[in-house]
Amino acid sequence: MENLVKRDILRADQFSPDEIELILKTARGYAGELKRGTESVRMRGKVLSTLFYEPSTRTRLSFETAMHRLGGAVISVAEAKSTSVAKGESLSDTIRTVSGYADVIVLRHPQIGAAEEAARATDVPVINAGDGAGQHPTQSLLDLYTILEEQGRIDGLTIALVGDLRNGRTVHSLADLLANYEVSLRFIAPEALRMPGEIVERLASRGVSVAESADLGAVLPEADVVYMTRIQRERFDDPAEYDRLKDAYVLTRAGLAAAKETVTIMHPLPRVNEIAADVDDLPGAAYFRQSSNGVPVRMALLSLVTPG
Amino acid sequence: MENLVKRDILRADQFSPDEIELILKTARGYAGELKRGTESVRMRGKVLSTLFYEPSTRTRLSFETAMHRLGGAVISVAEAKSTSVAKGESLSDTIRTVSGYADVIVLRHPQIGAAEEAARATDVPVINAGDGAGQHPTQSLLDLYTILEEQGRIDGLTIALVGDLRNGRTVHSLADLLANYEVSLRFIAPEALRMPGEIVERLASRGVSVAESADLGAVLPEADVVYMTRIQRERFDDPAEYDRLKDAYVLTRAGLAAAKETVTIMHPLPRVNEIAADVDDLPGAAYFRQSSNGVPVRMALLSLVTPG
Amino acid sequence: MENLVKRDILRADQFSPDEIELILKTARGYAGELKRGTESVRMRGKVLSTLFYEPSTRTRLSFETAMHRLGGAVISVAEAKSTSVAKGESLSDTIRTVSGYADVIVLRHPQIGAAEEAARATDVPVINAGDGAGQHPTQSLLDLYTILEEQGRIDGLTIALVGDLRNGRTVHSLADLLANYEVSLRFIAPEALRMPGEIVERLASRGVSVAESADLGAVLPEADVVYMTRIQRERFDDPAEYDRLKDAYVLTRAGLAAAKETVTIMHPLPRVNEIAADVDDLPGAAYFRQSSNGVPVRMALLSLVTPG
Repeated sequence: MENLVKRDILRADQFSPDEIELILKTARGYAGELKRGTESVRMRGKVLSTLFYEPSTRTRLSFETAMHRLGGAVISVAEAKSTSVAKGESLSDTIRTVSGYADVIVLRHPQIGAAEEAARATDVPVINAGDGAGQHPTQSLLDLYTILEEQGRIDGLTIALVGDLRNGRTVHSLADLLANYEVSLRFIAPEALRMPGEIVERLASRGVSVAESADLGAVLPEADVVYMTRIQRERFDDPAEYDRLKDAYVLTRAGLAAAKETVTIMHPLPRVNEIAADVDDLPGAAYFRQSSNGVPVRMALLSLVTPG
Repeated sequence: MENLVKRDILRADQFSPDEIELILKTARGYAGELKRGTESVRMRGKVLSTLFYEPSTRTRLSFETAMHRLGGAVISVAEAKSTSVAKGESLSDTIRTVSGYADVIVLRHPQIGAAEEAARATDVPVINAGDGAGQHPTQSLLDLYTILEEQGRIDGLTIALVGDLRNGRTVHSLADLLANYEVSLRFIAPEALRMPGEIVERLASRGVSVAESADLGAVLPEADVVYMTRIQRERFDDPAEYDRLKDAYVLTRAGLAAAKETVTIMHPLPRVNEIAADVDDLPGAAYFRQSSNGVPVRMALLSLVTPG
Repeated sequence: MENLVKRDILRADQFSPDEIELILKTARGYAGELKRGTESVRMRGKVLSTLFYEPSTRTRLSFETAMHRLGGAVISVAEAKSTSVAKGESLSDTIRTVSGYADVIVLRHPQIGAAEEAARATDVPVINAGDGAGQHPTQSLLDLYTILEEQGRIDGLTIALVGDLRNGRTVHSLADLLANYEVSLRFIAPEALRMPGEIVERLASRGVSVAESADLGAVLPEADVVYMTRIQRERFDDPAEYDRLKDAYVLTRAGLAAAKETVTIMHPLPRVNEIAADVDDLPGAAYFRQSSNGVPVRMALLSLVTPG
């Protein structure tokens, strides 16, 4: 199996099954170290540059924590847009400059393809932390890792993705990653926010069992994992349509009575009201564990791509 | 004596005398290490998250320095208000997310009670770095530590708190902390900015000798410690009243001729003109030492509350 | 030879030839360590405070990287103007406060003389990272270091400074540093942006061979080093004059056919269009190496001025 040294992390669909395996296994190792409080020195003396052209505090803090837990240091541009790094300078010039400082670069950028452009400009590994409506591969990997940790396996699961499936890059990438496994996918969305047809077809052509529905209640009883996403009012042309639909995609403790006892509930956060507060105490409410899984998964990615 | 492991630091009045003793003693130990240049590794491998919903660079830098001097790492949100951490997400959800990254959280927030709310949301220790007009307990502890360091004792001292005593959370908390000792307190303020009656009564009921006055000059000769605070023009309904009073609460070198030779002059900083520049060279001008005492005091708090 | 312990770095012309030698030699040592991946612990346990009253991400990241590569920690104020450090507080009070936290301070400020004012307020070493139209000595030192690394020597070189020589503090300071060596300087600028007469005279009086011209093409064939700077439209009273001139100071691959094969091309970055992208692949295109040289040079400065 190839390793990932000096590789860029740009897209969720770039990985071979072996590579996914390697990342998940490495992440589990780091999770164990975090739990035991073992101090890691894998990145001692190394420098990570976070370069955020749009703010995403959650993702930035998760990467920076990962680097610190590995014993490394961080130089941070939390809002590159307003700073001189960006002023009149091309992205590739900025990246080449930062490559003179850092051993690995994490880039968040509002434009699709920015991460690829950055990767072309440098030999330093670039990790895509979200490029607009494009990709956010590290989120998908931590989602996959969470399913594995919560359910103990991925093969054989029925996984429902719920909410705005048209615009959510998170669910697109996660679906692509899950296509490497023997899963049944259920896409629950209002008509206007259905999963794009090309993705549904691609999954079907890879042999994934896929079914679409607008009815969360009907799918709930068979789901092992329910992955909620936010439905934004501004996605609807007709506000009345939004008001009619929004409550259909709110998970409550009462509603979850119909679900399996072992169901895992996930959400990329921040939530607004898609999951009621009374769900938080359920054993299957995994969204904050999911968020904290970002640390070992990103530790794995940082340590795998950075040359020793 | 109980220790403080996993305890939140929320209010100045939460501490038993034994706990105050422990904090001051631990801080003195760290101050000695800082002086000798001994490298501490107490927090090696640990991560502090500073989470500032309003900017306070002084307090943030002081905490971050403390964490670094302990060998630990910092993830920082200098202005949470403008970031996605805050966007539409409840404070408790944000805190639960950050709890997945950090071993200890320092929170600054404009609303009274925010620190308590944060502490309820997580098992990770939360340190209140100021919640609006509420509490700022670490400031009060470093003030107390400074008095002890400068005067060699606290019992038996006459301590004058001067300026805006009505609105200053700093002086309220400090007075509460001092009530654990045998001190004489002198409150010097214009009528409109007097110490709230309930605080004066509470102190008196705890056996503290308290006297109120509007005349700084009359109190100066007997004071061992003069704690200046800023009087803000906007606190006065009548601007003429402000103009009449403001000079009465400016400390000058000439004015200090009437004070004890051993007097200690303090200020939480930043000062505007409450203390003239010609005071800075006096041996008793302790306000910059006071500010730098924030480091060992916060080292003590961080190391005492964070599980090994 | 004196060492630089506890010295402030304020101006490019403050150094004796021996001190310049010491800085360059120390920087080369660190560059070697960086290349070999040797971990430095020179600044373990030390804290650098970056204090930027105007944003300059490139310079800030370069200094922070340098501190991390030395094993030290950083507390950072990326935009002091908008923070409470600056609010109504004098620069010297802010510096005295930060001196209670940090072992060394890097200051960027929009006003000429701010670094000197800061240095007067504290015993902690202050490094000037640019004070308005004043000085930017660490840029000049890394420029000098780059010439030495690229050409193997400084004595005997013909060095062309090109572009806006009237307003560029970078080229002023570099010229002053180069006056310590046996160099021939060529100043290439439009009439309106010529090198100030006083600098030309000062250099001549120090025995430096200086020639001025507006014609880059004529000088190119004899130059060992071509140092490009940006010509800003807003410097011209007459926009037509700008349009007429701007292309005369753009370096292209075709234009460089007339240059020596061993020519070194430099630029302080960010570039806009002064150097065409097709130049980037030439072996002499040194501007990104120049930028990354900021790390070892600043490692040298930080380690030389900070007491052990």
